Amino acid sequence: MNINKPVLLIDEGKCRANIQRMASLCADKKMSFRPHFKTHQSLAVGKWFKEVGVSKIAVSSLSMAEYFSKEWNDILVAFPTNILEDELINHLAQRIHLNLLVESLETITLLADVVKFPLTIYIEIDTGYHRTGVYFNDYQVIDSILEVIKNADCLSFGGFITHSGHSYDCLGKEEVLSLHHINKNRFLQVKSRYIADYPNLIISYGDTPTTSIADDFDGVDELRPGNFVCYDVTQVQIGSCDFKKIAVVLACPVVSIHKERGEIIIYGGSVHLSKDLLKWQDKGVIYGLLAEKTEEGWGEPIENAYVYSLSQEHGKIKMNESELLKYKVGQIVYIYPIHSCLVISSMRGFTTLRGEILDVYRGL
Amino acid sequence: MNINKPVLLIDEGKCRANIQRMASLCADKKMSFRPHFKTHQSLAVGKWFKEVGVSKIAVSSLSMAEYFSKEWNDILVAFPTNILEDELINHLAQRIHLNLLVESLETITLLADVVKFPLTIYIEIDTGYHRTGVYFNDYQVIDSILEVIKNADCLSFGGFITHSGHSYDCLGKEEVLSLHHINKNRFLQVKSRYIADYPNLIISYGDTPTTSIADDFDGVDELRPGNFVCYDVTQVQIGSCDFKKIAVVLACPVVSIHKERGEIIIYGGSVHLSKDLLKWQDKGVIYGLLAEKTEEGWGEPIENAYVYSLSQEHGKIKMNESELLKYKVGQIVYIYPIHSCLVISSMRGFTTLRGEILDVYRGL
Repeated sequence: MNINKPVLLIDEGKCRANIQRMASLCADKKMSFRPHFKTHQSLAVGKWFKEVGVSKIAVSSLSMAEYFSKEWNDILVAFPTNILEDELINHLAQRIHLNLLVESLETITLLADVVKFPLTIYIEIDTGYHRTGVYFNDYQVIDSILEVIKNADCLSFGGFITHSGHSYDCLGKEEVLSLHHINKNRFLQVKSRYIADYPNLIISYGDTPTTSIADDFDGVDELRPGNFVCYDVTQVQIGSCDFKKIAVVLACPVVSIHKERGEIIIYGGSVHLSKDLLKWQDKGVIYGLLAEKTEEGWGEPIENAYVYSLSQEHGKIKMNESELLKYKVGQIVYIYPIHSCLVISSMRGFTTLRGEILDVYRGL
Repeated sequence: MNINKPVLLIDEGKCRANIQRMASLCADKKMSFRPHFKTHQSLAVGKWFKEVGVSKIAVSSLSMAEYFSKEWNDILVAFPTNILEDELINHLAQRIHLNLLVESLETITLLADVVKFPLTIYIEIDTGYHRTGVYFNDYQVIDSILEVIKNADCLSFGGFITHSGHSYDCLGKEEVLSLHHINKNRFLQVKSRYIADYPNLIISYGDTPTTSIADDFDGVDELRPGNFVCYDVTQVQIGSCDFKKIAVVLACPVVSIHKERGEIIIYGGSVHLSKDLLKWQDKGVIYGLLAEKTEEGWGEPIENAYVYSLSQEHGKIKMNESELLKYKVGQIVYIYPIHSCLVISSMRGFTTLRGEILDVYRGL
């Protein structure tokens, strides 16, 4: 493969193994699996999910639902419904089984007024993340939303969803498990309160850290993680995966070497990697780690080699002097991303290790 | 104009005034003006520069040079030459006056071997930013690069360029002026050493903070700023501009209001705004500030209203309770970006206040 500028490489084998692992977990625990496609954003990668029996998905915007509606018939937009897109809502609801997320009386009231085709409503529950959602014990708001759904011709109630996004702040498996314990129990309280009135309701759970680490999902009906499909350095730091499971790297040309500062400069900056960052061991803030190149793709991280600064198109990499001597201008280096969702959104396309370019959603 | 999802608005009047101001500075000081187009990335905005007499530009990648080569004939790629793109280099050099930046003997040697059409080389000088460039007093390296240029059939020497990117770390005009003083003097030392041998060499200078604030450019031949075309919150903090000069805002729908936390949630996240951040007054890290909506577009920032957290599509805004009461789900808010270059690169398109969509480079 001829790489001469920043290219996002995807290792299909690693990616398919990540998909299979999560699908098996769901099968073992008798949960349904509604993977979140906001990470890979790709119809081509979506086909790998179909091959393990997945038939319903989550996405993060109505526009993304439109992209996936070409090949998927059961789509949940896991984002508070944007009432301004009522035309697109109706367009999609007419063609596919559309599931929307609501977390306020205000939105469900507006929605009930404009919807012309049947769709399913999930109520988002806040089990502690405090981004969006009705707080798990705020039954008054939940009841008021349910009342509007009951009285609306085109709306039916599907169940509850939660996203424990604060699991991304955990360091290590124990912290993730403790948080999972709290969140799942809060979520089950909601289920137990409403299951008598709505015996078919499902509760949909799932962020990548808890679904990668936890084993106890008793009472959960559906898992909905997204990031696990490619993983990234953030997930390694949390404890969700090891480096072997990271299925994407950004391949970047070396354009300059500054031995006096122990630095190489790559063509690969914030427009490619995004500005997502984390504090890594004793290195301070980093924007990526270097991966060893192997015959098959990439292996372990290169010791002490990391992206420590980004401009629009420049990446600055620090590394040990002995390592630095191996590089020349015009070589390609591989960067494990900090956050795979954002690098994929920035790059708007994957290239497989066989050089095939995969179709990706190009909207926003 | 019907906005129902995140849209990047550009105020043509503010933008043209920013362009005129910088063009006048260059005219007054008898410098040539080679604006950096990596910020707006748009042929349409480029036309506004043509109208004030600009005929040469800088860009940040060869791909971007290709995009602008449709309408521009004198382009500098202000990024260390990526030798792997030799085909594109030759393709462009055959059609336009292509100017490349080199900062190592290694690259100029490789380049001299592959170039088949005449092009101009600028040597990048590091006057203190330490990203790329030959250190300003490292004459041995400069001499060795000049020697290769002299002996290469297709290469001619244009002069020196520097980018004082560390001016972005300055807080206030005094700091910018002190840094400008150091950098310009270092840069002039390089000029004075080589001007006898190369009487036509030019020195090209220019980041937005110094070119917005400083007045003394004696000896500088060319200014090359980019960000000034739209400015942003970072430039306000540095002291380069006031809020009135910020020519872009991200318009975002309100999708949720959490009064209990003093927060509104917008459809507008890191895929739109980018994860660029800064520490703002007593607010800690922020990702944007709210702008007042006016009949003509936008005015001053709304007091104490700021984006304090971003997910992929969600933005969380903190504001005073009295302000919060004015908002409803389905309204549009305007966000001043932290860094206009990145929000433009993420959004890949502008909409003018008349609702016209402007063409923007869509590559990377």
